[in-house]
Amino acid sequence: MRFLKGIRILAVAAIATGSAALQAVAQTDALPSWNEGPAKAAITDFIQRVTLQGGPDFVPVSERIATFDNDGTLWTEQPMYVEAEFVLARAEEMARSNPDLADRQPFKAILGKGRADLVTLPEQDIADLAIATHSGMTTSAFERTVLDWLATARHSRFDRPYTSLVYQPMVELLAYLRTNGFKTFIVSGGGVEFMRPWTEKAYGIPPEQVVGSSGKTVYRLEGDTPVIDKLPTVEFVDDGPGKPVGINRFIGRRPVFAAGNSDGDLQMLQWTTLNSGPRFALIVHHTDGEREYAYDRQSRVGRLDKALDDAPRRGWLVVDMKNDWKTIFKP
Amino acid sequence: MRFLKGIRILAVAAIATGSAALQAVAQTDALPSWNEGPAKAAITDFIQRVTLQGGPDFVPVSERIATFDNDGTLWTEQPMYVEAEFVLARAEEMARSNPDLADRQPFKAILGKGRADLVTLPEQDIADLAIATHSGMTTSAFERTVLDWLATARHSRFDRPYTSLVYQPMVELLAYLRTNGFKTFIVSGGGVEFMRPWTEKAYGIPPEQVVGSSGKTVYRLEGDTPVIDKLPTVEFVDDGPGKPVGINRFIGRRPVFAAGNSDGDLQMLQWTTLNSGPRFALIVHHTDGEREYAYDRQSRVGRLDKALDDAPRRGWLVVDMKNDWKTIFKP
Repeated sequence: MRFLKGIRILAVAAIATGSAALQAVAQTDALPSWNEGPAKAAITDFIQRVTLQGGPDFVPVSERIATFDNDGTLWTEQPMYVEAEFVLARAEEMARSNPDLADRQPFKAILGKGRADLVTLPEQDIADLAIATHSGMTTSAFERTVLDWLATARHSRFDRPYTSLVYQPMVELLAYLRTNGFKTFIVSGGGVEFMRPWTEKAYGIPPEQVVGSSGKTVYRLEGDTPVIDKLPTVEFVDDGPGKPVGINRFIGRRPVFAAGNSDGDLQMLQWTTLNSGPRFALIVHHTDGEREYAYDRQSRVGRLDKALDDAPRRGWLVVDMKNDWKTIFKP
Repeated sequence: MRFLKGIRILAVAAIATGSAALQAVAQTDALPSWNEGPAKAAITDFIQRVTLQGGPDFVPVSERIATFDNDGTLWTEQPMYVEAEFVLARAEEMARSNPDLADRQPFKAILGKGRADLVTLPEQDIADLAIATHSGMTTSAFERTVLDWLATARHSRFDRPYTSLVYQPMVELLAYLRTNGFKTFIVSGGGVEFMRPWTEKAYGIPPEQVVGSSGKTVYRLEGDTPVIDKLPTVEFVDDGPGKPVGINRFIGRRPVFAAGNSDGDLQMLQWTTLNSGPRFALIVHHTDGEREYAYDRQSRVGRLDKALDDAPRRGWLVVDMKNDWKTIFKP
């Protein structure tokens, strides 16, 4: 498989040196933010093969399912998941408007702490705060809260709105897949109701194609107004082995194409590629400390270790952000 | 479906020959199995209004979400839900191939019973058998079991395969909605993994647009083969107040159009219509004992009582199968 893939990459490179081929590439460059090279060639070669009607690797449109992790794969996840930033901001706001909360956990854990402490807050504190800030309101009230926060919050290093910190090469890849008949999904450990309000605008992915973690909810009629309340109970964690489970539950088909960036995506990449027929998986490797962040095996957030070890034998493409991407963020 | 395809071919032929009359027929006869009358007119009027660009009731394509109950709305649910027939057949098969099961509940409850007893089996027995027959195997093994059973099982009264007992007028309605930019979903109390293997062929609804009840599942790697095991634990019941919860969880948007036939759909119809903007809901009322079944307030399966009471004040269309439908089943 890998051997054959290598041959194809060489073939593409050889063809690309001819002037006619260069012209063809220029006309059809759906991935302008990707540098020319084996990573880009591997992607375009795969798409050409699975869309070639009558070819040996042809995949019918109905089966062209592509799943993408979100944090660290489609947008920045450092120094904290964006959703964790939201949780901390919301928790502070709740404690400010209701001083009784200040003495109670999980709120007490964060009050009076500076940014350096918040970034290293234990995961359990973040989880407790996530539950507290994601419940006790209706789904539509929560949606407004998310959109209001995103409208004003800015990233601590880049001083830009979070939704502008999406990766331009990945936005192009999503569009390229859709142009080629793929249905693109997000499959993220993040909260599904945190993502759905903005994924269509940011990535062209509609709410019904976002799979994520969730809390329990309950329906009720308030007078003649139906509402859905968010309860303080975790329902589903869409991470690690939960990703194939989420894909099976929400999509009901195995993907043909998947992209991730951490060990939380390992099982999704397995579920996608360890199957008959042509399959493709890629890992976004954060190698660019200058333009974004450089991290993998030792990182607290988005640790990439086992999946990086497995990539060669599984034939997963490891995308080197520093060398493979011309641009990082959406202009 | 085949008929609609014929219409489209006629339309193409009409355009080719310049016959405006034939073209108009093709455009206005998207629901040929519906008798002319207020029910059909209400549907076509609504679709014309929401698709009229610049009109006061225009709904953008991205928001055109339509949700359909399955049992009793898209196919026959009498004298037992088709899935209950499957459960009983599977349970008998399991007990036959493993005699130890015969003395154990829930299997003991059905062995030696005739069809008349099976039809009146307590709901709890069916539920216990459903769990026993829907677990202890991988998702792909279960899918094969469903397809194998559907290939040979026949309805006790009509002596036809179950997938041929889908309602032709509703199949036309689904296609009509899709032609008008709607994304059609099933939102059913039935098991999601029981439906997905055949809904695309029967209704044109792909697996990722099927929302249903589910059991817990778990992912594992068996050597280098990833599998998802079905566990004997209920995860989610997509019925009654569970339907808006399921719509919110799986689709993440409120429908513009919904169809049901029983009190299990009441909350879905509320969630769809008690909202701002143009909304449409219909109830399939089983009034045709000759061609299908006649039942509502007293029925054991598919009881329609509260939703029928609410229909007038909510403005829900009650479709009278006997008078509104020219044909019942797919030809």
